Amino acid sequence: MGYKIDYISRLFQRTSSKRIEHYVITRIWHLLDNYDLKMMPQQYVSRDQTKYALTDVYFPQIGFHIEVNEPAHYDNDEKIRRDLIRENDVRQNTGHKIFTIDCREDIIGIHKQIDDLISEINKAVNKKISLDTFKPWRPENEHNPTFWKTKGKIDLTDEVSFHTIEDICHLFGADASKTKRGFLRKGGIQHPNNYKMFIWWPSERPRSGWLNTFDEINGIITETHTDNQKRIDHYNYHAKDSHIRIVFYHFKDILGLTNYKYVGIYTNDREKSNEETGTVWTRIGESLNLETTEYQQKEEERNANNVYKK
Amino acid sequence: MGYKIDYISRLFQRTSSKRIEHYVITRIWHLLDNYDLKMMPQQYVSRDQTKYALTDVYFPQIGFHIEVNEPAHYDNDEKIRRDLIRENDVRQNTGHKIFTIDCREDIIGIHKQIDDLISEINKAVNKKISLDTFKPWRPENEHNPTFWKTKGKIDLTDEVSFHTIEDICHLFGADASKTKRGFLRKGGIQHPNNYKMFIWWPSERPRSGWLNTFDEINGIITETHTDNQKRIDHYNYHAKDSHIRIVFYHFKDILGLTNYKYVGIYTNDREKSNEETGTVWTRIGESLNLETTEYQQKEEERNANNVYKK
Repeated sequence: MGYKIDYISRLFQRTSSKRIEHYVITRIWHLLDNYDLKMMPQQYVSRDQTKYALTDVYFPQIGFHIEVNEPAHYDNDEKIRRDLIRENDVRQNTGHKIFTIDCREDIIGIHKQIDDLISEINKAVNKKISLDTFKPWRPENEHNPTFWKTKGKIDLTDEVSFHTIEDICHLFGADASKTKRGFLRKGGIQHPNNYKMFIWWPSERPRSGWLNTFDEINGIITETHTDNQKRIDHYNYHAKDSHIRIVFYHFKDILGLTNYKYVGIYTNDREKSNEETGTVWTRIGESLNLETTEYQQKEEERNANNVYKK
Repeated sequence: MGYKIDYISRLFQRTSSKRIEHYVITRIWHLLDNYDLKMMPQQYVSRDQTKYALTDVYFPQIGFHIEVNEPAHYDNDEKIRRDLIRENDVRQNTGHKIFTIDCREDIIGIHKQIDDLISEINKAVNKKISLDTFKPWRPENEHNPTFWKTKGKIDLTDEVSFHTIEDICHLFGADASKTKRGFLRKGGIQHPNNYKMFIWWPSERPRSGWLNTFDEINGIITETHTDNQKRIDHYNYHAKDSHIRIVFYHFKDILGLTNYKYVGIYTNDREKSNEETGTVWTRIGESLNLETTEYQQKEEERNANNVYKK
């Protein structure tokens, strides 16, 4: 049956409780009819330390978010106002685009909006193709550390995501046996060739009091602890210095499989961190050269000789 | 939001437990992209007195059935053989067409099969349009007795389906107050202008021991009773003579609403009926003239001057 149909059909199933949203999502996928385009479910974005759903569908290769607003959404003026502010924030922070489908209309009106959206998506894909920055969806590579080791570079847009900690260690030539501590597993390991870098795999699930909230779109991880003293100690330890972490975020994917997804290079943000919040990590690099350990904020700008600005 | 998107999105939701079937169904609908075409969920067909699912999707306007076979379906040779026999029976009995989507293939293979199917559906629709026998999906008319009273004729392909017994009575000019018996509701009423005809609204749900099984595609209703003596008496009463019934089948539709759907003119089949099975009713008419009470087996053959044979 194949990975892609397995993936998309599970994504459909997962959205099926919201009837109209589900109708819209299935239509977008089928009418796009592009096997090279990856469609992802809800993305979470934290703002003011609260975690909430940002968008219903996300196309990582082109940075497009889709929000499907069922009629009830428009009953509340305050909600509409908040949405607009939030959307504006995301656009400014990330350069991502957010499209809204207004489901107060009838079938013809909804279809018209989807047609327009699809034409925008195709335009963005074709632009990337013409600039040679489009990366087709290749699930068989995404999960294969040897593929990336050979390539010598990883970037956010590659959607690199491994199934085991051993795979992460293999990518960097680190000794996986050192990640074990009796029956426990450490939360990360030193980079074997660059002592200033730490390879970290924080989890979306709380682990022995540690709790991480992650805003993938804006690139912010908040590392905190339910115990006051542990949180304060952790904050004070990191606040003294500047730390750099290569981060693989640990989560269960739509197929129910464990994933460690490469989400960039982070440093502790000394302005945002404090004893109460904990340590806040901000993304400073999207692209990483595996041999030299050099990182860069955006890969596209370089590839395209700065012609294409997001 | 409108009836059609409400209807289709509920149909999608209802099929979402079977992941690949659901993927295929959503794709067929979106790529057909034809608001005039009604898509229906599972149709049941009885054979040898057993009730079982015939097909996953049905297009009543063109008599097309779609079966989506998930990979596990092919594990069992006996199942495949039975399917072929059954499909052949349906084709011969009704002239309907059955298409099978084989989901053992990958996404490209499955999409190719759906493309071929869509082109077959479009061909059938265009043929009907050119013969002037295509009836666009008009839910606002389907449920409106005044519309059909004015038109003066109903046919299976009209998908006439009322929400109340009052609506049925209104169509025939019958006295709805005579359908009430205290707190109970009678199962039917005499036709006011033709004493040989009985207007009947059997239910898919058992009612005080009475149980009906209905094969809509082949046009067979089996009326039986859990109590031996009642079933035998009922059989013997009807076996003596030939009875004619105009039938509106009572069921809950995909929107959760009560429906009485016009399913044709039936007569008691004296060969198939017996004391054990109960009374079997066979469809003898699809099209009914409301003024003259004349009925005909097929409407299309007449309209198209027998040019178009199903």
